[in-house]
Amino acid sequence: MGPSKELIEEKIRAGRDFVARWEVDEKLFGGYLTDQEKKLPQPPLVKAPMTDRAMDLPKDFSALDISTDFLDIINSRESHRVYTGESMTLTELSYLLWCTQGVKEIRGKAYATLRTVPCGGARHEFECYMAVRDVEGLEPGLYHYLPMDHQIEFLSAPDDLEGFVSDSLSGQTWTAKANVIFYYSAVFYRAEWRYGITTHRVLLIDAGHITENMYLAATSIGLGGCAVGSVEGDLCNSAFRLDGQEEAMFYAMPVGRIRAEDRTEEKAFYAFVEKEGL
Amino acid sequence: MGPSKELIEEKIRAGRDFVARWEVDEKLFGGYLTDQEKKLPQPPLVKAPMTDRAMDLPKDFSALDISTDFLDIINSRESHRVYTGESMTLTELSYLLWCTQGVKEIRGKAYATLRTVPCGGARHEFECYMAVRDVEGLEPGLYHYLPMDHQIEFLSAPDDLEGFVSDSLSGQTWTAKANVIFYYSAVFYRAEWRYGITTHRVLLIDAGHITENMYLAATSIGLGGCAVGSVEGDLCNSAFRLDGQEEAMFYAMPVGRIRAEDRTEEKAFYAFVEKEGL
Repeated sequence: MGPSKELIEEKIRAGRDFVARWEVDEKLFGGYLTDQEKKLPQPPLVKAPMTDRAMDLPKDFSALDISTDFLDIINSRESHRVYTGESMTLTELSYLLWCTQGVKEIRGKAYATLRTVPCGGARHEFECYMAVRDVEGLEPGLYHYLPMDHQIEFLSAPDDLEGFVSDSLSGQTWTAKANVIFYYSAVFYRAEWRYGITTHRVLLIDAGHITENMYLAATSIGLGGCAVGSVEGDLCNSAFRLDGQEEAMFYAMPVGRIRAEDRTEEKAFYAFVEKEGL
Repeated sequence: MGPSKELIEEKIRAGRDFVARWEVDEKLFGGYLTDQEKKLPQPPLVKAPMTDRAMDLPKDFSALDISTDFLDIINSRESHRVYTGESMTLTELSYLLWCTQGVKEIRGKAYATLRTVPCGGARHEFECYMAVRDVEGLEPGLYHYLPMDHQIEFLSAPDDLEGFVSDSLSGQTWTAKANVIFYYSAVFYRAEWRYGITTHRVLLIDAGHITENMYLAATSIGLGGCAVGSVEGDLCNSAFRLDGQEEAMFYAMPVGRIRAEDRTEEKAFYAFVEKEGL
């Protein structure tokens, strides 16, 4: 019979308030200071390498055939959930990582990273992980991006990588056929130090900046993907060795090689629209 | 003396959970069905015009000098809070609206709009409003974008437009010098119909898609802006005639004409970094 109408309404109201009421409740939180306002030391700008296996990524993107028609990139961006099964090159992977999390500059001595995506207060409280299924020159497995030096590090190779990917994204089996699946965690205190209790709403908006750059960068070199919000937190946190409290996985985007002929197959994802006469 | 440590910790934990725990609590919400699952009729895809003053926007962008270097657009995108005071053209405004909310196609009879930005389930539960300060051919004032026909409609002209803009964005006076300030509302039920109680987390991520396209589209034609999360909801809802419940303003982005020489002035926004030795 399901939950009561009142419970549902309360939940909806809380969600709406989270979106539209960013102000601190003065009655409850009057006098609140963030840790930055209290002059507490700020946390590291990026996560330290998790292994001693850091590997440089190519930074020369001149071999890529990047579209020169920005408006066409915007107009032709679509969700892609069908992939050809051909390999992706390491330079393509490097380009995608650069366009979505690349560090362009450090502000101050070590105050903030300025990146290829905007982020509130330049906190960049995200870490990017990958499940690499088919990228030339890389052993399939789980990786971590090291943005300060534009490197990746190999973490581990699950016995059943495709099974892990599909399970980690709420059983959506198409995700496991992508060449690479980008997983994003939030290292909360990196932003909370500055924004305190108002951090989390803007954090989600900032995550959208990352995936939009991913959509466009992929489109610009003829690749495709589709962001996924239903990330199985416990499974991902365990696989990538995150504690789930201070750092938690929350968002993902599979990207792969695509071809125009597969648009028919892609349309199967929307068959219900015609079937239900919507 | 401020709020208790326990209250702050509770608030932080709730924020983190909102980001990373998207799953419905089965104990509380087992058996929950969304209105789409219940086969209830879906709400309109866009808001009806609010006036009879709809005005076509130019759709021919060939006169614009759009950068052909996608990677340079990505690399040179920055926050811009200093504007030159020169006019923006109507074609530039039209281009920005197209790149961020333009409707490319309708899926099904009237199931979804496919737009120039991705949005979970193609719900596109946003409406775009503007405070136009200085755009050639437009009377200064408040406007509403009509995405189905790529039109805008004039709503009203506040006595003190710059005062309104600054007040509406938590007193950030730089915002009032932009040529146009884009304001985004959420029409909640448009997404809740499909996603129910899990709507609001993804809604914020989807808002980030819009502003990232705005950053890049502005950069591609030599304009600049900076997104603002601290929108004064009550003031905006009242000015744009939103009820604040079913539709609420929550996000904004001023965009204007910029020049390289103003980067020094822009740096004043970060003077505290050097001053505090960060």
